[in-house]
Amino acid sequence: MSDLPASIHIHEEGPREGFQIEPGPISSVDKVRLIEALSETGLKSIQACSFVNQRLVPGWADAEDVVAAFRATPGIAYSALWFNDKGLERALAFRDKLSLSGTISLSASEAFNRKNLHRSHAENLEAMRKQTALHLAKGVPVKRIGVMAAFGCNFQGDIAPAEVVRTLRDGLGVAAEFDIEISRLSLADSMGWATPPRIERVIGEVRSAWPDKEISLHLHDTRGMAVANAMAGLRMGVRSYDSTVGGLGGCPFAGQKGAAGNICTEELVMLCEEMGVATGVDLEKLIEVGRMAEAIVGHPLPSELLHGGALAAFRRAAA
Amino acid sequence: MSDLPASIHIHEEGPREGFQIEPGPISSVDKVRLIEALSETGLKSIQACSFVNQRLVPGWADAEDVVAAFRATPGIAYSALWFNDKGLERALAFRDKLSLSGTISLSASEAFNRKNLHRSHAENLEAMRKQTALHLAKGVPVKRIGVMAAFGCNFQGDIAPAEVVRTLRDGLGVAAEFDIEISRLSLADSMGWATPPRIERVIGEVRSAWPDKEISLHLHDTRGMAVANAMAGLRMGVRSYDSTVGGLGGCPFAGQKGAAGNICTEELVMLCEEMGVATGVDLEKLIEVGRMAEAIVGHPLPSELLHGGALAAFRRAAA
Repeated sequence: MSDLPASIHIHEEGPREGFQIEPGPISSVDKVRLIEALSETGLKSIQACSFVNQRLVPGWADAEDVVAAFRATPGIAYSALWFNDKGLERALAFRDKLSLSGTISLSASEAFNRKNLHRSHAENLEAMRKQTALHLAKGVPVKRIGVMAAFGCNFQGDIAPAEVVRTLRDGLGVAAEFDIEISRLSLADSMGWATPPRIERVIGEVRSAWPDKEISLHLHDTRGMAVANAMAGLRMGVRSYDSTVGGLGGCPFAGQKGAAGNICTEELVMLCEEMGVATGVDLEKLIEVGRMAEAIVGHPLPSELLHGGALAAFRRAAA
Repeated sequence: MSDLPASIHIHEEGPREGFQIEPGPISSVDKVRLIEALSETGLKSIQACSFVNQRLVPGWADAEDVVAAFRATPGIAYSALWFNDKGLERALAFRDKLSLSGTISLSASEAFNRKNLHRSHAENLEAMRKQTALHLAKGVPVKRIGVMAAFGCNFQGDIAPAEVVRTLRDGLGVAAEFDIEISRLSLADSMGWATPPRIERVIGEVRSAWPDKEISLHLHDTRGMAVANAMAGLRMGVRSYDSTVGGLGGCPFAGQKGAAGNICTEELVMLCEEMGVATGVDLEKLIEVGRMAEAIVGHPLPSELLHGGALAAFRRAAA
């Protein structure tokens, strides 16, 4: 347990992930309520919305309304997601309120590239070159490389750790062309293929290749392994995690209707806090927000902890 | 990872746990169907029913009908649960078909004893003395001590590992009075308080005290930690686990309506098989049975893997 970090950073993606996938409609007012409630929990990084094609993602057709309306809490970085020039332009209109930064976003699975992004890895690299140039031209920093399907892929099967290293190397190559410094390597278990030993192997190989870069984990609970995988990440010293309150979201990929989404923020917080790893999050407040999220979407969310309740309340009652 | 076992033994409790808590009514025919389907998955130990007061647990009022009806598969140990003389008598009527064995069942939490069993630890020990005498008189072996609330308690809060050791010592004292050999110590996270480090501490202390006795884990997923806890158990070399298909069951304890039940068998199997720990279970068949269980109870079960699907099918499709 020597590598357990003293604290972790949580990047809350509940609003963005959740409302992009819920059949809805969900009112802008409810989206604002959720963002503001999350802001009261101690979370320091909240992905508030997605600037995407509203025909493809009707749940975020009101991104502008939501971003304009929510009351930002000082000290919290509110971010947004976009995939193209148009999305970036929409985000730039809120550059005073949102914390904008770009990602070189790749996939370790060539089959996933073709099925999900409709282009080859080489074509995707070229797209990332163009996007990076655009980000930099607009004064948006690019400090992160994201690798989707880093632990396995529904379309390609198992992904060798070497494939992840190669993908990251290609991304770092793009970054080098622009002379930018990448500080974070984000590894995404986009389709829930990770298990603890797989997490350890991939992180081990990535860290051997780039010992100075921070690794972050984006875990999905598609097959119930997310908390165990976060535990493996913690013991490998990983200090940065994406998660969604209540497990909001879900897997938009083919063949997995009804599958769970991201790791639940509250289960990640419980895991950490019970081990003395600080998160800065008030778990009981967060669980309240999770219940609010459940009421907003109108159906049970996959988080078990939402329904089981925090230990603290039982500890107090027992004292 | 040096302590990872080569294989584990799974004790499937889905039928017993599930049908005792479901609001039902669920037909005897469906219960039989589930037991027989589980028998086709490679599981070697299945708890088929509960011989309990039918006013308290109407879901098992038909225990006799179900046990009489299911087709037993050779090589599988079918077990049952009972709490008193009357239950034992009912079970004894099926001693040719069921594998009957007794447990010295204790709780590490005095508050849980009083709230759940309505007696003190001392009174419970006395009850276990009487029950053990009865078991032995009827030719039912007693080889196991079970400790409920071994990792924490909704009524008492945290439970020190030393309390678990003391509880086991008391149970072993009862066994010694009868000159019987206890081979298995079962530690139950009855209310979902365990986290991986807590699992390690408790197992460490129990194993130090009794290095030769097999430890088994009965994990609940009340707060989403069950798979991570099983992982911790595996790395501590624990080779025996209780679980329920689909996560059937739920927590019958106060204040936790809607909380998840036991660790899902299929998620336990996936965790193990992906790490090379043999379970003897055909995961894809088991997931099919989980879906059958979901159809029988008529609502979604908490297992994520049921909805995410086994990796094997995706591997085949990708190959």
